[in-house]
Amino acid sequence: MIVDCAEYCDGRRVAKVDVARISEVLKKPNRFVWIGMQEPDDALLKTIQTEFGLHDLAIEDALRAHQRPKIETYADTLFVVLRTVQRKDGRVDLGETHFFVGHNFIVTVRHGSSITYVDVRARCESTPHLLSKGPGFALYALMDAIVDQYFPVINALEDDLTEIEENIFHEKLRRDNTAKIYYLKRQLLDVKRSVSPLIDICNRLMRFDLNFIDQETKPYFRDIYDHAVRINEMVDNSRELLSAALEANLSMISITQNEVAKRFAGWAALIGVPTMIAGIYGMNFSYMPELSWQWSYPVVVLGTIGICLFLYFRFKRSGWL
Amino acid sequence: MIVDCAEYCDGRRVAKVDVARISEVLKKPNRFVWIGMQEPDDALLKTIQTEFGLHDLAIEDALRAHQRPKIETYADTLFVVLRTVQRKDGRVDLGETHFFVGHNFIVTVRHGSSITYVDVRARCESTPHLLSKGPGFALYALMDAIVDQYFPVINALEDDLTEIEENIFHEKLRRDNTAKIYYLKRQLLDVKRSVSPLIDICNRLMRFDLNFIDQETKPYFRDIYDHAVRINEMVDNSRELLSAALEANLSMISITQNEVAKRFAGWAALIGVPTMIAGIYGMNFSYMPELSWQWSYPVVVLGTIGICLFLYFRFKRSGWL
Amino acid sequence: MIVDCAEYCDGRRVAKVDVARISEVLKKPNRFVWIGMQEPDDALLKTIQTEFGLHDLAIEDALRAHQRPKIETYADTLFVVLRTVQRKDGRVDLGETHFFVGHNFIVTVRHGSSITYVDVRARCESTPHLLSKGPGFALYALMDAIVDQYFPVINALEDDLTEIEENIFHEKLRRDNTAKIYYLKRQLLDVKRSVSPLIDICNRLMRFDLNFIDQETKPYFRDIYDHAVRINEMVDNSRELLSAALEANLSMISITQNEVAKRFAGWAALIGVPTMIAGIYGMNFSYMPELSWQWSYPVVVLGTIGICLFLYFRFKRSGWL
Amino acid sequence: MIVDCAEYCDGRRVAKVDVARISEVLKKPNRFVWIGMQEPDDALLKTIQTEFGLHDLAIEDALRAHQRPKIETYADTLFVVLRTVQRKDGRVDLGETHFFVGHNFIVTVRHGSSITYVDVRARCESTPHLLSKGPGFALYALMDAIVDQYFPVINALEDDLTEIEENIFHEKLRRDNTAKIYYLKRQLLDVKRSVSPLIDICNRLMRFDLNFIDQETKPYFRDIYDHAVRINEMVDNSRELLSAALEANLSMISITQNEVAKRFAGWAALIGVPTMIAGIYGMNFSYMPELSWQWSYPVVVLGTIGICLFLYFRFKRSGWL
Amino acid sequence: MIVDCAEYCDGRRVAKVDVARISEVLKKPNRFVWIGMQEPDDALLKTIQTEFGLHDLAIEDALRAHQRPKIETYADTLFVVLRTVQRKDGRVDLGETHFFVGHNFIVTVRHGSSITYVDVRARCESTPHLLSKGPGFALYALMDAIVDQYFPVINALEDDLTEIEENIFHEKLRRDNTAKIYYLKRQLLDVKRSVSPLIDICNRLMRFDLNFIDQETKPYFRDIYDHAVRINEMVDNSRELLSAALEANLSMISITQNEVAKRFAGWAALIGVPTMIAGIYGMNFSYMPELSWQWSYPVVVLGTIGICLFLYFRFKRSGWL
Repeated sequence: MIVDCAEYCDGRRVAKVDVARISEVLKKPNRFVWIGMQEPDDALLKTIQTEFGLHDLAIEDALRAHQRPKIETYADTLFVVLRTVQRKDGRVDLGETHFFVGHNFIVTVRHGSSITYVDVRARCESTPHLLSKGPGFALYALMDAIVDQYFPVINALEDDLTEIEENIFHEKLRRDNTAKIYYLKRQLLDVKRSVSPLIDICNRLMRFDLNFIDQETKPYFRDIYDHAVRINEMVDNSRELLSAALEANLSMISITQNEVAKRFAGWAALIGVPTMIAGIYGMNFSYMPELSWQWSYPVVVLGTIGICLFLYFRFKRSGWL
Repeated sequence: MIVDCAEYCDGRRVAKVDVARISEVLKKPNRFVWIGMQEPDDALLKTIQTEFGLHDLAIEDALRAHQRPKIETYADTLFVVLRTVQRKDGRVDLGETHFFVGHNFIVTVRHGSSITYVDVRARCESTPHLLSKGPGFALYALMDAIVDQYFPVINALEDDLTEIEENIFHEKLRRDNTAKIYYLKRQLLDVKRSVSPLIDICNRLMRFDLNFIDQETKPYFRDIYDHAVRINEMVDNSRELLSAALEANLSMISITQNEVAKRFAGWAALIGVPTMIAGIYGMNFSYMPELSWQWSYPVVVLGTIGICLFLYFRFKRSGWL
Repeated sequence: MIVDCAEYCDGRRVAKVDVARISEVLKKPNRFVWIGMQEPDDALLKTIQTEFGLHDLAIEDALRAHQRPKIETYADTLFVVLRTVQRKDGRVDLGETHFFVGHNFIVTVRHGSSITYVDVRARCESTPHLLSKGPGFALYALMDAIVDQYFPVINALEDDLTEIEENIFHEKLRRDNTAKIYYLKRQLLDVKRSVSPLIDICNRLMRFDLNFIDQETKPYFRDIYDHAVRINEMVDNSRELLSAALEANLSMISITQNEVAKRFAGWAALIGVPTMIAGIYGMNFSYMPELSWQWSYPVVVLGTIGICLFLYFRFKRSGWL
Repeated sequence: MIVDCAEYCDGRRVAKVDVARISEVLKKPNRFVWIGMQEPDDALLKTIQTEFGLHDLAIEDALRAHQRPKIETYADTLFVVLRTVQRKDGRVDLGETHFFVGHNFIVTVRHGSSITYVDVRARCESTPHLLSKGPGFALYALMDAIVDQYFPVINALEDDLTEIEENIFHEKLRRDNTAKIYYLKRQLLDVKRSVSPLIDICNRLMRFDLNFIDQETKPYFRDIYDHAVRINEMVDNSRELLSAALEANLSMISITQNEVAKRFAGWAALIGVPTMIAGIYGMNFSYMPELSWQWSYPVVVLGTIGICLFLYFRFKRSGWL
Repeated sequence: MIVDCAEYCDGRRVAKVDVARISEVLKKPNRFVWIGMQEPDDALLKTIQTEFGLHDLAIEDALRAHQRPKIETYADTLFVVLRTVQRKDGRVDLGETHFFVGHNFIVTVRHGSSITYVDVRARCESTPHLLSKGPGFALYALMDAIVDQYFPVINALEDDLTEIEENIFHEKLRRDNTAKIYYLKRQLLDVKRSVSPLIDICNRLMRFDLNFIDQETKPYFRDIYDHAVRINEMVDNSRELLSAALEANLSMISITQNEVAKRFAGWAALIGVPTMIAGIYGMNFSYMPELSWQWSYPVVVLGTIGICLFLYFRFKRSGWL
């Protein structure tokens, strides 16, 4: 599906372009074409390939999705794959966007979950002095929008971590908490895998001598690079904390176990001692003089209660109850 | 055992070639020979060596199998070893394929478990414009087929991991589950060891100035490189998750232990309290006035039941039962 | 908010400068301007940008704060971001300082928690022979002051670690201790993230051929580099010890659990044995000759006490009590 | 002790050489001397040093042993140290061999446990066309023999690991098994430390422009390099599996603990319930009508047995027995 | 405090030099000055600085101590910091030594625990042919002496580890053992931090084109490099074993816990069963015919003993006692 396809001159939108006419437009000087597609079918991609003269292998990748983030150069075209990320229903949802950039065109192909790039295009069109730098700037604007989507996701994951910490040290929902730690780790690995190749991609965009990326546009990619490094660092930080959380969780479980064992032992003593005393006076010996004394029953009962109270307070003080 | 041996011209199969006549064919211009063997014996390999003029050490490797994936250059021959992988009966089954590539020949030697390369050869023969690029393209097609075999295996391992997760957090088959985690780790390490040298191999095929690999064929190796990187990433991801799973498993076991201890303590109290009370009224003191009261028996029994019910509900609420 | 803004000539303060007049001053030869700001608003930064001719992207960073430590060069300006660190109420408090350095100016922008740089400026003004080396020396003096703030923080964290160790091996406050280990790890990661990019920053300041950093000033940056490496090492050391502490903590918890179980078992035997003996003599068989013997009661009681004492001392010796 | 000392010409043994005459032989053209020693004393090494003109530091190393594997070049001599490894009585036994290689001599010094090199020399002498390549080939042959000794050792260690796995998942000999895991780790570290420097050594032998290593001999060192990489990989693999095994072991211990606790709880209930019921009918109340009923005794006993059977089967089904 | 200060010519001691006269001596050709100090005060260091013309920053470092091992070059002076290590009362005691080396002088500054360098100087003076190579050789001799001090310390730490292993697998002193493991880790990290920068320092001494280090002296630094690598390797090895030991320790604790639980369960059954049987015959039913049989008492008692013996031997065999 084609979302938008337009012709630009000096950073200003000139006209909407029909897919079949693209190759004509590309022949005009000082023009560039920006086409956005969402999950295009085979036929559409074939047309795009012939109109822009793209390489077989790149088109195959764009069709199949499930690529890892990467940057590849084919003769005079740049092929960039990025992963988009969104948080839906407490889960990390991944999508993909592919870019083909030439000196006078930029093609974007969206797959799966992602924001729409209509707003990005609108923002670019509102700053023609920047967009006039060519498709390289459009690439920057799109990549910047994608990378900005990572921050809310990571903040949400960091909030999850804080909640997990809270649960660990206040002993709530143990069973769920272990699962939460595990699934948070899973999500962090997903984000990590999406964001870590970005650093290399930006590095190459900043350094490569690509004639379709304007020299003045390069510092902008450094900005994205910087964001990618920060996101990466946030993810690594959370992962390391999560490992410590998993271990702290295990320690807290063991501490609880100790406390359970101690409380059980304490109560067992409080029940066992009277049972033992009662057993002794339940023996059937003929000559047990205290059995026939008048006050021995209340004395024994009160004595037993006394022993139990003594034990109770001792256990209480030493943490065995 | 020779599977197939043919002579190609301009990407088209010309004729089946007899092993003994290979050296003659190699003298013709614009021809290349493609021979496929499966677990050849010493004698056959010797013939092959003299026909193609291969190096002693490479032939020795091809005979012994159990090599690690590698790429080696001998004067004018390229020697490549790859590990093939297949999933059989829930186990990862490894095989090996060795390639000798010269400017006008390609020799493949299969050992152990692997797919047959008859289909690959058929596919190549059906696209003569690609196969006309020479033995380099045949090498690509074979390597691509081998690498594609990794994806279903890894998907199966990922499914195993998902099942393990399920078991961990729903507490099923604990004992088997720990063994499963361990053996999954084993299999992942096997796959890892097979696939990680591939990245370096592809890198060298892409960059080396090998005169028998056509310049146009090189981007194709980048495609395999890409797959190798992805497989590697998937394996690493699964390994990291597996480590977390092992720890989560231990946490869940400890939590269960806590629950067992609590339930045991709860029930012990519910049995211990009536035993204690009964013991008290089993004492043989002469002056225990309540013993002779008419209603004391039902009162004591009902009182005990009351205490037990009270304990039961308290324990139930606080999670000790 | 502008803290101070002055004009320097030959390392000596010449006059306070009004923000609006900065660009005039910059035109004079042999002068440099040093301006310090704290959390400036948008308008002020815009003025600063036009007066000094700074790059859009750097100004954007300086406004938003929450950057990671970095060094960037824009044409003829150096942009440096550092994290400042302070210990408040047992927590690590992070701030940020941004520097813009040109051949005749230095701009500092403070965000969040940090020391004031008034003292640093005073110290620099008291050594005009050093300050005469230009804004590069001012940058060194400021960075040195920031890095020196790290040492007391890390010493405090190391003291926390020593206290934790003490608690682990003397079994105090188990529950709090685990949380303390975790939160100490958190703080160490914060410090680590702030200090580790410093090494690279200093490296670049030492090696880059930046015309506004005097050749003689470079060894001074090596001094900061050295401090950064040492801080980094101290943090890594503490982190590794902390991991070992977490594991040792778990071991100690398990050992305690063992001891609890043994003591419980010991006491259970001491209560269970008399109960069993008493039960036997509480049986109602008609022909139990010992029941009617005169001394059997005291004999049984004393015998039971004897057995208990025997068990008590045996358990005591073998560590089961 | 000198094992053998001979003079070679064109790969053929010419004569046994007396140590004192070595320097004379070295002056003849197209000859090389191969001397093998075992734990030589100070005096012998001094003689060797003067005869061959070796460096002080290298001789010192050769005397002291306990070097790590390394390669060093002194002017026109190559000094190589390798660790030899053998399996004796279930333990890894390490030895050392030192090589001095010049353009017309090779000196080997054996320390500690290792195979004898008499066979290697015999094999070399049987292939004069290879040995004629000079001392470089002799070095290859010796290194190859040493590296080949690693494989049986690692296979034995891998077998140990398999046995450990078996024990872990079939719960045998827990106590011994933990010790076995630990000592296997120890042995793997020993082998690792011996074999990992080999990779670098071979790399340097393959790449260095050493005039006493024939160009044609270099691919042979690639063969050893390959073996070293494989051994290294096998060791790393085993180490990673061993770590997982240690964790799996702990999990299995905890699972067993759970099962012990459950079984104990189940049996405690089966004993506790009849005790409680018996206690109740042991109370001495005057008005307990059921005490005097004729069938109440068998009814109570049968009832108790019924309850116990019910509990028994319930526990059995739910895994508490 | 000045330990010794002398003038050397051709490797022979010429005369003791007064500090104030050093600059005069330095003007003579073919002479070099070797001065050793221990914890010098500010004034002395100032004198030294002016006499030798040393850099401010290096002198500041030499005064403050607590530097990390490093090598720095200032114009024509080399500044080296090493950590010295000694074992005192079962603890690792760290010191520092700083070296200033110029083409005609060497200054050593000792801080904290270390051996005296009087012996090293004496040994150097006894080999004038070596010392005549200049201050570079003196630097080697001193560094060699420092590095040699590491071996006995590491051997002591390795002995500690062996003792810990012994304790783990023979279950002695659990509580102390965990603390010992932790503090051994601490000491290993201290040594590691002192020794690992040495590798880089030696590397730079071997490779740098420093005109005051004689070309012939360089192989000697390779010798120190070699020792540093070995020490580093020994420390890493011990650290890895220690981690495994910590885990093995935890496993052994858990195994013991299992055994405690089993033994407790076994004995509980041996006490619980007679209690239950006795309880049954303690019931007060009127019609319990066996109560009045003459032999029922001994039969029940013997039966109970029989059951207990049966359980005892069964438990014994299955490891529950």
